[in-house]
Amino acid sequence: MLDALQNQLSTIAEQESVRVLIIGASGKAYSSGHDLVEVQTNTHELFEKCSQVMMSLNTLPQPVIAMVQGIATAAGCQLVASCDLAVASDKAKFGVSGINLGLFCSTPAVALSRNVGPKQAMQMLLTGDLISAHEALSYGLINKVVPQRDLHSETIKLATSISSKSSFAVRLGKKMFYKQLQCNNLKDAYSFATEQIVNNLQHHDTRRGIQEFLSRV
Amino acid sequence: MLDALQNQLSTIAEQESVRVLIIGASGKAYSSGHDLVEVQTNTHELFEKCSQVMMSLNTLPQPVIAMVQGIATAAGCQLVASCDLAVASDKAKFGVSGINLGLFCSTPAVALSRNVGPKQAMQMLLTGDLISAHEALSYGLINKVVPQRDLHSETIKLATSISSKSSFAVRLGKKMFYKQLQCNNLKDAYSFATEQIVNNLQHHDTRRGIQEFLSRV
Amino acid sequence: MLDALQNQLSTIAEQESVRVLIIGASGKAYSSGHDLVEVQTNTHELFEKCSQVMMSLNTLPQPVIAMVQGIATAAGCQLVASCDLAVASDKAKFGVSGINLGLFCSTPAVALSRNVGPKQAMQMLLTGDLISAHEALSYGLINKVVPQRDLHSETIKLATSISSKSSFAVRLGKKMFYKQLQCNNLKDAYSFATEQIVNNLQHHDTRRGIQEFLSRV
Repeated sequence: MLDALQNQLSTIAEQESVRVLIIGASGKAYSSGHDLVEVQTNTHELFEKCSQVMMSLNTLPQPVIAMVQGIATAAGCQLVASCDLAVASDKAKFGVSGINLGLFCSTPAVALSRNVGPKQAMQMLLTGDLISAHEALSYGLINKVVPQRDLHSETIKLATSISSKSSFAVRLGKKMFYKQLQCNNLKDAYSFATEQIVNNLQHHDTRRGIQEFLSRV
Repeated sequence: MLDALQNQLSTIAEQESVRVLIIGASGKAYSSGHDLVEVQTNTHELFEKCSQVMMSLNTLPQPVIAMVQGIATAAGCQLVASCDLAVASDKAKFGVSGINLGLFCSTPAVALSRNVGPKQAMQMLLTGDLISAHEALSYGLINKVVPQRDLHSETIKLATSISSKSSFAVRLGKKMFYKQLQCNNLKDAYSFATEQIVNNLQHHDTRRGIQEFLSRV
Repeated sequence: MLDALQNQLSTIAEQESVRVLIIGASGKAYSSGHDLVEVQTNTHELFEKCSQVMMSLNTLPQPVIAMVQGIATAAGCQLVASCDLAVASDKAKFGVSGINLGLFCSTPAVALSRNVGPKQAMQMLLTGDLISAHEALSYGLINKVVPQRDLHSETIKLATSISSKSSFAVRLGKKMFYKQLQCNNLKDAYSFATEQIVNNLQHHDTRRGIQEFLSRV
């Protein structure tokens, strides 16, 4: 599964025509994370591969939306946290439940704690309890909760909004966003952001977009 | 406008008698950001100047409150995010809408992502959609939502509360707050904070404040 | 009091049998922070000692839960922020009120701003106003608000959930969580987390936990 995801991500990264990626699932679970037989062998290789997939979501040129219809636990919750955006059914639940088996969800904690405050993340990690979609929304883990029957249409609506924008600007923006977030210093972040917005303004999509806007007002 | 703001900020920074700054606006918009004719020329200089104004809000000795009566988009939303505090009318709306014209709001993203979680910030940046004042409150972008008719009085109430405190302590505090926030390491943050609180305690305002309190209890 | 707390924490850190620590209080206040007579003498030593206690909560091998029945102000609010988890009565209130006496709560700001967004933290620090338990929950400062009469039982329920997990995994997890949070870079965080989860999987508690789970499904 991780190999298949990594291959797909590598292929999609090269495809100019793909504007946005939705990661959905069918069945009761969105993803319940690792196969517990598999984690007992080649452990190091397995978790390195998994971390690589999660980082590939972050470095993928296109925005990624998690469309969450069911339970997302452990590496499944990490997958949601690693996407740029997430829409969830009101039936979805989220948890980092490894601790129930004596396995602290260390790798999921990396992604989770970059979306959710430390007290909320620690509660999830130490208790293994599932939280509701509404709690996940209030913690900042997801963007929107919708009735199950609207999950597909609402996710498509969000994806369509993004795919209607300049592909150049969206790709530049995603990359710059995470890079500037790493700057502790406001001055460094602004230097980098200024360089990027100047670059963005020189693109023909942007020049045309601004000209069209100005001709309408 | 940026020159005027920068000049005002430089002047205010020198004025001991100014205890707190409120940045308000009149009309339909609080600020809709850059002039789109202007962004097409002297781009680099313009965005450097804008970033400088935003950083000057952060380094201004006095606290700054955004009083938001209407729409705050792009650099206007960045202005709100760059203030220390923000009070908004329930009619106010917030967005980083450059993406609609093919321009990812890279410089606004710096300020926005230091107030709002990554999933919420990315949704705003990638869709360009406006959010309501209540959403802005739940995301952490602003401090308070009030009815339009109470905006002025509620902002003045907040400003008056701050201006009634020791000016020395307020200025020391604002500066130390943002500096310690840059420390990844808890030990470094506490070393710096300890030095600052010891300094604060030696000031006559503080000595008198504590003496008066102790004489009342 | 700080010496007593530090001694207790040092003792508890060595006790393998202690799984989780609850810090509660009786009376009207949870903690109103420093003695204002004491802060006027040996100031530097006092605040260094206090910071050391707060950092010891962070480095204590066991998770720490604040059980907050009343008002937590200044270093009392810092204590709540410094615990891993916090459960509060709906009668509890929180504030960093030193500014009312001319003393910006610089050391409390370190802990507070690592739980609460900058606009919310600055409002609390600059106004000295108390916030309700429900506001504290929405800001991320605490985990749960319960009726006063349920405070003890709800806190015990949370503690019991944690103490039922593998002690090895809980200790490894708490330590790794705060360490990975200091990594600006996703790659560094994942390298460290991968090493930790591989280590965790080699422990007999974890091997047995997984085997038992697999035998049930």
